[in-house]
Amino acid sequence: MNLIGKALIAQGGGPTVVINQSMVGILTEARKYSQITSVYGALKGVEGIVNEDFIDLTQETTFNLEQVAQTPSSALLSTRVKPDANYCKKIFKVLKAHDIRYFFYIGGNDSSDTVHIVSKEAELDHYDLRAIHVPKTIDNDLVVTDHTPGFASAARFVTQAFAGINLDMKALSGVYIGIVMGRNAGFLTAAAVGAQKFPEDGPHLIYLPERPFIIDNFVADIKKVHDQYGFCVVAVSEGIKDPAGTPIILSLLKDIEKDAHGNITMSGTGALGDLLTAAVKKGLGISRVRSDTFGYLQRCFLGCVSDVDQQEARDVGEKAVQFALANNCNGSITIHRVGDYAVQYKMTPLADVAGKTKYMADEFINEAGNHVTDAFKSYLKPLLGSSLPPCAKLAAPAVTKILNK
Amino acid sequence: MNLIGKALIAQGGGPTVVINQSMVGILTEARKYSQITSVYGALKGVEGIVNEDFIDLTQETTFNLEQVAQTPSSALLSTRVKPDANYCKKIFKVLKAHDIRYFFYIGGNDSSDTVHIVSKEAELDHYDLRAIHVPKTIDNDLVVTDHTPGFASAARFVTQAFAGINLDMKALSGVYIGIVMGRNAGFLTAAAVGAQKFPEDGPHLIYLPERPFIIDNFVADIKKVHDQYGFCVVAVSEGIKDPAGTPIILSLLKDIEKDAHGNITMSGTGALGDLLTAAVKKGLGISRVRSDTFGYLQRCFLGCVSDVDQQEARDVGEKAVQFALANNCNGSITIHRVGDYAVQYKMTPLADVAGKTKYMADEFINEAGNHVTDAFKSYLKPLLGSSLPPCAKLAAPAVTKILNK
Repeated sequence: MNLIGKALIAQGGGPTVVINQSMVGILTEARKYSQITSVYGALKGVEGIVNEDFIDLTQETTFNLEQVAQTPSSALLSTRVKPDANYCKKIFKVLKAHDIRYFFYIGGNDSSDTVHIVSKEAELDHYDLRAIHVPKTIDNDLVVTDHTPGFASAARFVTQAFAGINLDMKALSGVYIGIVMGRNAGFLTAAAVGAQKFPEDGPHLIYLPERPFIIDNFVADIKKVHDQYGFCVVAVSEGIKDPAGTPIILSLLKDIEKDAHGNITMSGTGALGDLLTAAVKKGLGISRVRSDTFGYLQRCFLGCVSDVDQQEARDVGEKAVQFALANNCNGSITIHRVGDYAVQYKMTPLADVAGKTKYMADEFINEAGNHVTDAFKSYLKPLLGSSLPPCAKLAAPAVTKILNK
Repeated sequence: MNLIGKALIAQGGGPTVVINQSMVGILTEARKYSQITSVYGALKGVEGIVNEDFIDLTQETTFNLEQVAQTPSSALLSTRVKPDANYCKKIFKVLKAHDIRYFFYIGGNDSSDTVHIVSKEAELDHYDLRAIHVPKTIDNDLVVTDHTPGFASAARFVTQAFAGINLDMKALSGVYIGIVMGRNAGFLTAAAVGAQKFPEDGPHLIYLPERPFIIDNFVADIKKVHDQYGFCVVAVSEGIKDPAGTPIILSLLKDIEKDAHGNITMSGTGALGDLLTAAVKKGLGISRVRSDTFGYLQRCFLGCVSDVDQQEARDVGEKAVQFALANNCNGSITIHRVGDYAVQYKMTPLADVAGKTKYMADEFINEAGNHVTDAFKSYLKPLLGSSLPPCAKLAAPAVTKILNK
């Protein structure tokens, strides 16, 4: 098969620190094939397609591309627009006008849905188009794939943050509550365990959207840990829900913001952390209770990246092009874990991935619903990459007291 | 001179990522001198001295010490207790009982004050004691010294955070407000500029405790930037004050917490960020306004460290021992910048440092009071250390539009 025409790359949804690796992977691989006549980039995702805001990526230098690959966030800019059938008709008019035959959209659940809609619209229009979803999301909530590019680096951020917080709280005592991104899936919050080493190390408690959140249990759990160790470090997902399934943050925010996908805005406010802090102070009478909302730091922090994530993000870009040309079908690139640790890449039908959400498996969550299991730790560890700095403690023996005998 | 006896090391105040470098510097240097018979560590600063909670640091292995040196936060734990004369009498009883003749206290303004009180108390008691303050604080607010160990690594965190945030906001647009630590001095907030590269790069606005904060000007400033670039990234110090000198956060918190030094607790809550976000939303009608409070992440994040900071923190520990033995007097170790970039270390009298606060110099702040000057950038750059990852952008030309001509 030899579908001749241009390729188009776009990036959608929230950025990650490795999403540009995928873009550069697609671009550099696509340029090896003569049937791909040139490679365009759409600025601001599907918005840029409709507006024909394209740049000609074949006119980038190799050195600059490699610098961009290492730069966080979406170099092609992004969008939260979710195209309906009418929006897709506009897209096709543009694709046809520019003779674009290969469409690579890098994004999460919402973006895979977009690719799916676009590909169905292309079929209806009898327009020969390869539409490929290249996975990306720090939430790690795509189905079929073992994990998503972008997750591992964000997980490394959360790991490094909690490693430092644990040492900070050990030194000055008290209770710390860190609010981590994750609307429906708790993977990123669970990554707080990544550097746990000694038995007394935090995070001592982890609360996930997959389990009902009951504030009284939360306070009682913290009391138990604080009584034992003199400090307590807690990881809480921004998406925690009450037993009826209503997000806890919903009861806090007067003006709920929703994006075009119907998602509630949960980051960019410290409200949830402040509520939980107040509950602990009131319930336990501990004065030093602190909360941080990790917010946007965790998804784009310059220089906190997993080398495994970097490589896989590049790989899924290259594989997207290879599958598009070798298989001549549409799909989503998925990562499959083989052994401990290696991966294989596959092309999965869009209908199997689009718009679906993966949650943490039951085997990853402890029985009490307030921590993770060893199975999750084994799942997480290889993703975090190499060269985590040491977390050591002094081992010197105590000196015999003279006055306070 | 040959004052024979034990040495004692303690760490006070808020931790940093390099404070253990100073502790290991003191320890390894002290062990070279035969008049220092052994080196103890006090657990939890001055609290540990009064309680005789000592460990015998001479029984640490070299490998573990080097691992601890790279580990964030205070390996000897910390305290916020500020000793009065009575507390100091208790300290002396313990020092005498253990024949401790060299006291090294690693900390900030408050800790330098503690060393000063202890040294005066020793004089009154005619007890021959070398009391040395080893500087440490992420706030960079000690006088005499060019900068303080711990600042540069926290500044690197703030730099890397804003570099990522800038790229994130560029991709999805809107307004971002990052709240950075700094009760009285704006150095750490100002470090948000560290990776600024292209003209449109944030932080576009920086608000410091050194200048009065007027909410209407703040909103108007943001409008101007947002109109020009379509996004706006703002760095705000947690310590911003109204024209009367009252911290903005004071009007927000019902229950003000103060530590033993009379300091107000400003971190561990998202209240200030939420207030500013609401003001911008209401004033400008921009829907995507986000705020993060960097909180405890910025002072102990594992793996975000300036190599310059690491080396200087080790150096001030070693110099503390060398000055104590060579000069036979008490003091605070200070760093003096020579050339661009090298430093010299000096011993400064405790009275010149203790309890005093350094603010950002006028030449570091722009006339409008909403950004920093090139002089500050020159001051900051060498401190951030080597190997900052790239922040590159695509340079490809636009494609000619076909349908939207």
